[in-house]
Amino acid sequence: MKFTCQKSDLIEALQIVSRAVAVKPQLPILSGVYMNAEGSTLELQGNNFSLGVIAKISANTEVGGEMVVTGKYLLEIVRKLPGDLVTIFRPDDDPSKCMIESGSESGSVSFDLLAMNATDFPKVKTQETFNSFKIKSAELKKVIRKTAFACSSEEVRPIFTGCLFDIEGENLNIAATNTHRLAVVKGKVFDNGESFKFVIPASTLRDLMRILDSANENSNVQVESSHKYIAFTFDNIFMTSRLIEGEFPPYDRVIPSDRTTTVTANIAEVLAAVDRVSVISKETEYNTIRFIMSQEGIKISSNSPDVGHVEENISATIEGEELDISFNELYISDVLKAMDGEEFKVYLTEPLKPADFREVDNDDFIYVVTPVRTN
Amino acid sequence: MKFTCQKSDLIEALQIVSRAVAVKPQLPILSGVYMNAEGSTLELQGNNFSLGVIAKISANTEVGGEMVVTGKYLLEIVRKLPGDLVTIFRPDDDPSKCMIESGSESGSVSFDLLAMNATDFPKVKTQETFNSFKIKSAELKKVIRKTAFACSSEEVRPIFTGCLFDIEGENLNIAATNTHRLAVVKGKVFDNGESFKFVIPASTLRDLMRILDSANENSNVQVESSHKYIAFTFDNIFMTSRLIEGEFPPYDRVIPSDRTTTVTANIAEVLAAVDRVSVISKETEYNTIRFIMSQEGIKISSNSPDVGHVEENISATIEGEELDISFNELYISDVLKAMDGEEFKVYLTEPLKPADFREVDNDDFIYVVTPVRTN
Repeated sequence: MKFTCQKSDLIEALQIVSRAVAVKPQLPILSGVYMNAEGSTLELQGNNFSLGVIAKISANTEVGGEMVVTGKYLLEIVRKLPGDLVTIFRPDDDPSKCMIESGSESGSVSFDLLAMNATDFPKVKTQETFNSFKIKSAELKKVIRKTAFACSSEEVRPIFTGCLFDIEGENLNIAATNTHRLAVVKGKVFDNGESFKFVIPASTLRDLMRILDSANENSNVQVESSHKYIAFTFDNIFMTSRLIEGEFPPYDRVIPSDRTTTVTANIAEVLAAVDRVSVISKETEYNTIRFIMSQEGIKISSNSPDVGHVEENISATIEGEELDISFNELYISDVLKAMDGEEFKVYLTEPLKPADFREVDNDDFIYVVTPVRTN
Repeated sequence: MKFTCQKSDLIEALQIVSRAVAVKPQLPILSGVYMNAEGSTLELQGNNFSLGVIAKISANTEVGGEMVVTGKYLLEIVRKLPGDLVTIFRPDDDPSKCMIESGSESGSVSFDLLAMNATDFPKVKTQETFNSFKIKSAELKKVIRKTAFACSSEEVRPIFTGCLFDIEGENLNIAATNTHRLAVVKGKVFDNGESFKFVIPASTLRDLMRILDSANENSNVQVESSHKYIAFTFDNIFMTSRLIEGEFPPYDRVIPSDRTTTVTANIAEVLAAVDRVSVISKETEYNTIRFIMSQEGIKISSNSPDVGHVEENISATIEGEELDISFNELYISDVLKAMDGEEFKVYLTEPLKPADFREVDNDDFIYVVTPVRTN
């Protein structure tokens, strides 16, 4: 096996497949990156069984073949190479080695790394497809950004560590909750005929979002689901992940229907105020910040007996009854960061009943959060 | 006490005095920043007994007085304030509080923090001066940058955790060693009459170097030493530190006088090569890299049985005998980072005798490093 390719292409592809490379796996082979050179294409793979990623780049293959090298060293070495081109090959006299060579005017470098047995590598598999649809990469990034943050990070109830994808025709509904808050967003898909649902791990979606950052905004992402797996194909990338099994609870009934107070305020201003108040709230037991909504605007405050007190006045428009309500600071700053536009609305009823956050003039994104009980 | 000042001035002064504020001290008062407002000046102090720092900024004092607040919260809060101005005061009805207020068009914020008893704060003292001299701030930064890195980080032999300042007339010699390597640099001082020596903790010098980053390049730094303390005064800053007691060993005899091989090479090229080779060397027991100096240039290599091998060829000029010599990678990259200019020289004799690194055409900076014994 011997190929030459652009260093920059190889770095980008290694960063992508590295998301699926285990750092300290039980099986050493899972710490490896699989490389397969053939004709004008180099295929790279990473696979930790939860997540599998394939990336393809252009390469000039002198001798076709496959090889597996520890991902950690490979990426670090390629990043530091002096030239614009890199040549990787298996020496004829020692098939256990992977040679990496690169040179520039100032000198040349040659690494030989211990290679692993390529036949041991669990190649990323295409699963039998039950359903499929397409979505624009920018749309997919947007819907992940607005929901994945709301998932639970605790493995006790696995279903809450993922986002529900609920698809009917061209309509996509995504929901995520940790039982204290719920984010729901609507999006558009195309080339879909069936109705179906599945729950994708939030960690997979975060990896996907970062990989999509290097994708073309106008790329179409082909999504295919089988019984236990989901696969995303776009540009020269293929990514597959296990799905979370189990029933996602009905979430529609959590969205409040009553609205006795409606507050409209500037997203950036409230986010900056909440950030200041967090200096005190993070020293409290439940990271509690208090919002007093009145005709004068919003008074945001927090109190820690050990540190002190803070009070901030922000201009806002209040329709309906005045209200005094407290939240976990993180649950508020998270949603404000996920919102687009200049202003947000929040619909409220009582101090202990859920608040319903929306973007102004857009009901495609709904965020419901349970208040904190205070004395 | 009540004053108003520019937020940006206060942030800069708090960053400076925070270097002397303890995070989790045995005495809670040492986690505080001392503030004293009088007329048009606000004085800030931090003191952890090893290091004391005073910074002065312009302020508009309404009521003179002093106050102590936890440094951690104060800096975090002031950084996040919405307005360009900040007002800090003790409320008439509660002397245990420190109020911090700031506002902008979008709203206003008011913090009240628990204040500490200002009379408990150990104010930074000016010691009786035995000796004094002046040095340009740019010169002081340069000589610290070229020596402090070479100190020991182990407290077992305290004398090696500091830099020796040896002053005769206008000549300053600084030496630093961890017994495996030695850095010596010459500098110029002025307004000095006496000959004297003292050892300053490397940690103090690193703090000083960062504080000097915000000083004017052309500022003169007044240095005053007493028996156990050293003080630096420049711009609106006063910094005092304990000195390290004990005798710094004679270091001149460590500098080799024999030179049978002289290698001249490009600093940036060798630094980049050493950085690549470090991917392998950091997996070896002593972080060992090998230099083979020959008429073809320098071959830099490293070998780890678990990971692999690397070999790099760099162009260089060799005068005298060829040589095969190994070093701890960090000891080489450290000195190359501290060097100025394009090229460096290294004088060598035998594989197990010290190497002597110099800047080309400048013998004011000398770095001697002991090789690693290899099999």
